[in-house]
Amino acid sequence: MIKKVDHIGIAVRSLDEALPFYTDILKLPLLGVEEVESEQLKVAFLQIGETKLELLEPISSESAVAKFIEKRGEGLHHVALGVSSIQDRINEMKEKGITMLNDVPKRGAGGAEVAFMHPKSTGKVLYEFCERKG
Amino acid sequence: MIKKVDHIGIAVRSLDEALPFYTDILKLPLLGVEEVESEQLKVAFLQIGETKLELLEPISSESAVAKFIEKRGEGLHHVALGVSSIQDRINEMKEKGITMLNDVPKRGAGGAEVAFMHPKSTGKVLYEFCERKG
Repeated sequence: MIKKVDHIGIAVRSLDEALPFYTDILKLPLLGVEEVESEQLKVAFLQIGETKLELLEPISSESAVAKFIEKRGEGLHHVALGVSSIQDRINEMKEKGITMLNDVPKRGAGGAEVAFMHPKSTGKVLYEFCERKG
Repeated sequence: MIKKVDHIGIAVRSLDEALPFYTDILKLPLLGVEEVESEQLKVAFLQIGETKLELLEPISSESAVAKFIEKRGEGLHHVALGVSSIQDRINEMKEKGITMLNDVPKRGAGGAEVAFMHPKSTGKVLYEFCERKG
């Protein structure tokens, strides 16, 4: 059902300040940077094996990530589980009593279809299902 | 230099309460449970692709994970980066100005050699280097 850890989301105040640790010190390849307008985020992707690190910089104080940083500080934000047939996975979770934050997939960074589980259902970890086409 | 995300460490109050979400709902294979005496932890491993989830239950209030839970609550704790030649990686990080919590590797769960970076050097993420033999 779950194929891999698709990515790990990390909340940062500034990509410019956060990226040199990843690119210059850990020597991870930077795959790209994009704005995700719907989430009010600027996102940078780095590759480690089959998994990406997704650095999340809020571009407005209304972004959920801005509120996360205000409350908890920078750091680990979420873990995305790579799946296929994401709508089936959402339905299955709801049948099993898990509260989903998204009943239908929404478009995430990198063109993926994503849906989040409520942390109250998961032991306080923000898990995301993530499906990439092709 | 970094081969994969070896594992993601997740702080939990109780493995008995946390595990059913992973094994019964997400259907992840449980690889095993062990006590890591030196860290005052009971640890459960689950496999997702090339990465493990490591659920960390403190078995004494002196455990660093017990203090983490007291301060921050349950949830994402650390990310372990799979490397070879871990002592070389530690030396390289120190040369580059990264503060290491371990100057020489210590024995972690599953018989791995591990060394942690200070979160102040990494944008507030607790990263671990992790080398597994054979």
